[in-house]
Amino acid sequence: MEVLSTARAFGGTQGVYRHASVVTGTDMTFAVYVPDHAPGAKLPVLWYLSGLTCTHANVMEKGEYRRACAEHGIVFVAPDTSPRGDDVPDDEAYDFGKGAGFYVDATQEPWARHFRMRSYIEQELPALVAAEFPVDRDRQGITGHSMGGHGALTISLRNPGRFRSTSAFAPIVSPMNCPWGEKALGGYLGEDMSSWRQYDACALIKQGARLPDLLVDQGTADNFLDTQLKTQLLDEACRKADMPAQIRMQEGYDHSYFFISTFMDEHIAWHAERLNK
Amino acid sequence: MEVLSTARAFGGTQGVYRHASVVTGTDMTFAVYVPDHAPGAKLPVLWYLSGLTCTHANVMEKGEYRRACAEHGIVFVAPDTSPRGDDVPDDEAYDFGKGAGFYVDATQEPWARHFRMRSYIEQELPALVAAEFPVDRDRQGITGHSMGGHGALTISLRNPGRFRSTSAFAPIVSPMNCPWGEKALGGYLGEDMSSWRQYDACALIKQGARLPDLLVDQGTADNFLDTQLKTQLLDEACRKADMPAQIRMQEGYDHSYFFISTFMDEHIAWHAERLNK
Repeated sequence: MEVLSTARAFGGTQGVYRHASVVTGTDMTFAVYVPDHAPGAKLPVLWYLSGLTCTHANVMEKGEYRRACAEHGIVFVAPDTSPRGDDVPDDEAYDFGKGAGFYVDATQEPWARHFRMRSYIEQELPALVAAEFPVDRDRQGITGHSMGGHGALTISLRNPGRFRSTSAFAPIVSPMNCPWGEKALGGYLGEDMSSWRQYDACALIKQGARLPDLLVDQGTADNFLDTQLKTQLLDEACRKADMPAQIRMQEGYDHSYFFISTFMDEHIAWHAERLNK
Repeated sequence: MEVLSTARAFGGTQGVYRHASVVTGTDMTFAVYVPDHAPGAKLPVLWYLSGLTCTHANVMEKGEYRRACAEHGIVFVAPDTSPRGDDVPDDEAYDFGKGAGFYVDATQEPWARHFRMRSYIEQELPALVAAEFPVDRDRQGITGHSMGGHGALTISLRNPGRFRSTSAFAPIVSPMNCPWGEKALGGYLGEDMSSWRQYDACALIKQGARLPDLLVDQGTADNFLDTQLKTQLLDEACRKADMPAQIRMQEGYDHSYFFISTFMDEHIAWHAERLNK
């Protein structure tokens, strides 16, 4: 692992790192914030998965998470959203290819070699982070925004017990039922929709997957709410499954980091309650 | 004034605006954050002047000021750092020309027509902001970073009584005594150094200008500390003048927005104490 940069921030260290990923077959870059801590201490870790077009840098620059992470003693990890590099296939659209890995393991050509963000986020990066940073793997939380909210929900639902806390900002809740998801899952996984269900939070809940609880914030002025995000599908799935979920509609907020940063403090405090007990 | 964008954030509105500036002879863009407030209320206003290469957007995206401004009921204004546009002369260096207005009224060609950031920030923009936003002109504070810290200090020192509170993050404290300042003042004002003094915080203090108090944060790991910023010159000038100043050296912090955002809360609280009493 190579250190690209570190900076002192809020009584901790914000770093950016790069490593050669075996899973994606590319170099991968990610950001980690580590609050100051006692020598030898292991801190809880919060994973943040970003949305379409983002890298590790968007939340690092605009997410306003460091103050609350320092206060609660939480390590914050922000991965990239896809493999990168000249050898990696791409698409000219913003919602497919680079910057749009959708947290799946692609099975279709030309994507299958590099677009393996599921295995990267579920397996490879956690092992690297545990080896290189002072984190307690028994105290992990996960969150994300939009496509990354979809990633957080589905990764947590598929790995029961791994995450003590799960939340999301304006998540895509059912990619099988929105244009972004249909395009991405069809492109990466092919036309057989039975393979899509493991990547659809609502379908996973319908099939019996459960979380102990869930916090979701969604802005009412989000341009993608009606066509892509469809928060009500998650609300319905949780109600039918009798799964506890706080799904909060935030009046007037849009899809941007102005929205995310506003509620970041509350999400981190919510994770901290579950990670620090 | 044209509204370029608005977004809900931290229980207030973050907007970006553009207007045709008479002073600079160009369109100028600026950002304003307005916390929600009672109808008809006039709020105190904090001016934030940005550093070299920045626009209004840097602090808007990375400054982490909205939570504290909402808490204290303070309007936050972030202007650009220079005129912009195809007709505006420029220099290929990052530290002269566009993005490097240095908050002076240029007298030298080809800069004199457009590079009038002193008059823009001191006169034209305050009048526009007072006309268009719910601000109380009797309760103004000013701060800034690096070149913008220089701007905040010199504008406040030259306009006694206008600002109830003045602070700075890693300011250039004596442009007459550093390469950035010598280049900018020489280029915009010409070789006669007597015209430079009005743009040098230390020189203004030596000449008798005073602030009631002052808060400055400076990172010890700032790459520009020894060669450009020279914080100790401000410390010496304040001591000799018996002018109260809290100049805090922050261990391990650099020149970036990771540093600024860390101490933004404390600066806003410090301004709020003086603006809200």
